[in-house]
Amino acid sequence: MIILDTRLKTPLYLQIYEQMKNRVISGRIPYNSRLPSIRALSETLGVSKNTVTYAYRQLCAEGYVTNRERSGFYAQKLEYPQDRGITGDPKEDGAGSSGQADSPGFSGCRYDFHYGSINPLDFPLNTWRKLSNKIISPAHLNKMVSYPDSSGEPELRTAILRYLNISRGVNCRPGQVVLCSGTQQCLNLVCRLLKPDSTAPASVAMEDPGYDGARVVFENNSLNIIPVPVEKGGIRIRDLENSPARLVYITPSRQFPTGEIMPIRRRLKLLEWAARTKAVIIEDDYDSEFRYTGNPIPAIQSIDTKGQVIYMGTFSRSLSPALRMSYMVIPTPLLASFRQIFQRYNTVVPWMEQKLVETFIKEGHWEKHLRRIRLANKKRHDTLIASIHSTMADKVRIIGKNAGLHILLEIDNGFSEEELISSVRRKGVAVGPVSRYWIDRERCKIPMVLIGYSGMDSAEIEAGVMRLKKAWF
Amino acid sequence: MIILDTRLKTPLYLQIYEQMKNRVISGRIPYNSRLPSIRALSETLGVSKNTVTYAYRQLCAEGYVTNRERSGFYAQKLEYPQDRGITGDPKEDGAGSSGQADSPGFSGCRYDFHYGSINPLDFPLNTWRKLSNKIISPAHLNKMVSYPDSSGEPELRTAILRYLNISRGVNCRPGQVVLCSGTQQCLNLVCRLLKPDSTAPASVAMEDPGYDGARVVFENNSLNIIPVPVEKGGIRIRDLENSPARLVYITPSRQFPTGEIMPIRRRLKLLEWAARTKAVIIEDDYDSEFRYTGNPIPAIQSIDTKGQVIYMGTFSRSLSPALRMSYMVIPTPLLASFRQIFQRYNTVVPWMEQKLVETFIKEGHWEKHLRRIRLANKKRHDTLIASIHSTMADKVRIIGKNAGLHILLEIDNGFSEEELISSVRRKGVAVGPVSRYWIDRERCKIPMVLIGYSGMDSAEIEAGVMRLKKAWF
Repeated sequence: MIILDTRLKTPLYLQIYEQMKNRVISGRIPYNSRLPSIRALSETLGVSKNTVTYAYRQLCAEGYVTNRERSGFYAQKLEYPQDRGITGDPKEDGAGSSGQADSPGFSGCRYDFHYGSINPLDFPLNTWRKLSNKIISPAHLNKMVSYPDSSGEPELRTAILRYLNISRGVNCRPGQVVLCSGTQQCLNLVCRLLKPDSTAPASVAMEDPGYDGARVVFENNSLNIIPVPVEKGGIRIRDLENSPARLVYITPSRQFPTGEIMPIRRRLKLLEWAARTKAVIIEDDYDSEFRYTGNPIPAIQSIDTKGQVIYMGTFSRSLSPALRMSYMVIPTPLLASFRQIFQRYNTVVPWMEQKLVETFIKEGHWEKHLRRIRLANKKRHDTLIASIHSTMADKVRIIGKNAGLHILLEIDNGFSEEELISSVRRKGVAVGPVSRYWIDRERCKIPMVLIGYSGMDSAEIEAGVMRLKKAWF
Repeated sequence: MIILDTRLKTPLYLQIYEQMKNRVISGRIPYNSRLPSIRALSETLGVSKNTVTYAYRQLCAEGYVTNRERSGFYAQKLEYPQDRGITGDPKEDGAGSSGQADSPGFSGCRYDFHYGSINPLDFPLNTWRKLSNKIISPAHLNKMVSYPDSSGEPELRTAILRYLNISRGVNCRPGQVVLCSGTQQCLNLVCRLLKPDSTAPASVAMEDPGYDGARVVFENNSLNIIPVPVEKGGIRIRDLENSPARLVYITPSRQFPTGEIMPIRRRLKLLEWAARTKAVIIEDDYDSEFRYTGNPIPAIQSIDTKGQVIYMGTFSRSLSPALRMSYMVIPTPLLASFRQIFQRYNTVVPWMEQKLVETFIKEGHWEKHLRRIRLANKKRHDTLIASIHSTMADKVRIIGKNAGLHILLEIDNGFSEEELISSVRRKGVAVGPVSRYWIDRERCKIPMVLIGYSGMDSAEIEAGVMRLKKAWF
């Protein structure tokens, strides 16, 4: 009999999915034998048929069971990995990584510690379908055939603003919020906005190491990039002050990739520097939704009194990157010229996506969803840290835990970064390189790998870490 | 009794909508009296309840009827325009223009001849909802939480390619198709792609008059714009040859705004020029779907043997601008550097929109839809031309008929462009300016207005033209 622990915050269909998956993998439901019917299971568990159906469909999609016309769901034959007998973990065949099958860094590995992945079961599929049904209706026909507001529909911008104000302390008027299709697009607009009239290329200071996706946009806009070292507490202000830069791109809530959190004193220093040099700060708050201990530090934008911060956020980590939706807050002093430059531009975000997210937020699903995935990712984070401790605590150093969706792992076994990655790859595990995030690669001395966990479940994380240890030590 | 002419290509709910609207407006269904129940009407007409429901909902949305809980639909009190008695057109209160309520150039006028509007009833709402229901399903969960392909999902790019090949003669491999969120976004990428390494600003030749939305993108990319006069047959090649430009942006299928169609000989001359000077041609095929007489001339891309044409198209005119979806075809010689420059960029088009359009095309809805709206717009076009002829043939000159979604009207009554626009505005009619499309405004001598018709129905067009005549003569 399947037992649901309703105290768990995880949705019921996820619990059904997990437990049925284990029964198939462990052979408790043998190959070719029938699973309980949807009706029967929904009655025994007292859950809706849909809940069971989704769990079963997901198991089908992942190849654990097969659906036979008018007959039901049957366990599939599973190909176990060669070394299964050794670890003996019945969950080792976890298929969570299939969720990343289409993300850019997809590795084809069974255990994919790829950064920024989203576990498919974290996506609010039912709500999404319900809302889109409500939205695609004659009542919205006019909107469905018209150009949306060039900065994004006012209702959505207001909804985003309210959320940012409560969760990040960001204060601004709806007119300052600009909807965009990803952080790179936001940065593209900012590059044009701040472009000097002279043909001499301007400079932008960047954290080193830092987000390479931003770097390539700056390069494509012929900005001269000034790398500034990252130390404990984030970007080294002293070096910034000694640089000619009048524009800086930073990730203070959780420096990417090191995970350093910039303390309030340094944030104030940064604002002082900006005020003194009339500089602009681009604050990329890319994964501020995920902080597992203590309270999040408010955004720099929230303590900026002179309008020198351009704040950026995205729905890619918290909802889905397939939405291609991000936003930025333009400070009042830059608003007039922003409007002047882009007044003839159309928005890049489709109306339907805008309306979906707006309704998702307004009807309270967003808050619930955030609580749910924050909890799910905290669980994954804790599992990852615990298994690393229990398997190789003395041999590795964990960098940037307690927040976000990834950690850095410093491995002191004489391997190079390439060797660290290729050795685990042979064991069916994908981890990310870190050196690519350095501008001045000389600074990247100790070999490290990047480990994301948001796409996997706990069992997969444990099995994956076990394999890391085997490959490295 | 309501009679449906099923020979009409218009969908049933549109016919029901139109006829019920007329009955309410004409008073055949008096204020406050009940419309036939949905069940009753669907039975009498032998159409589904949904069909009737949509028609009724649309009437509600537009304020002709009101829906009373558990009682039915009732005719609303209508505010007739002051001069209604004069024209006596029962349809004068038509609400088609409400479809433009949110498009950038919305005028607030009852008769909105705004360019590029789409009549809400032209949008395939039911199909759209059906498809999105099919798409938002567990089977697609992985895709729904992943980054789409950076140039657009391969299946969609292949579908677009097939269509372009059949309808426009465009020949290329799927890898050359790049999905984008509007022509301006396409042009942004092209500007970066063709940017010279030197800091000296490059030049781009543009048709004068030409599309101002493209001009502003070129300006924002610090390109030096060279205006080239438009004559019969399109851009004046001689002037182009005498210019330093090695890049030209043109709309040969239907020059915007003049509607000139570039004959094949001139197209070949243009390609010769490009070959001789190693120049690049940007071919914007923005409304090629709409040609009402004769066969469309194949795209320049289709006769380009040296890979010097960057072809662009959009779904904004044919499906909806709310989709924010466009595409371009990168010629082979530029493909390598395009990939190199943008390899780290994520796509700007959400996965769901991509999947919707892909399925819409693959299941054959796209072809049907095109036939339907082409017919609808031809009808609107013919009505417009006919009413202009019958009301003021001797006093005006029509420029650029028989294709597209707009015409230019040259009015010789001594009014300035401003006077032409403001005088009709006072009569509740919106027409667009033309002078703004000129770079060298000196060339824009004779006062003209731009008249789009794709957002209105025939009755509104007739009533609107009647008012134009009254205002001008």
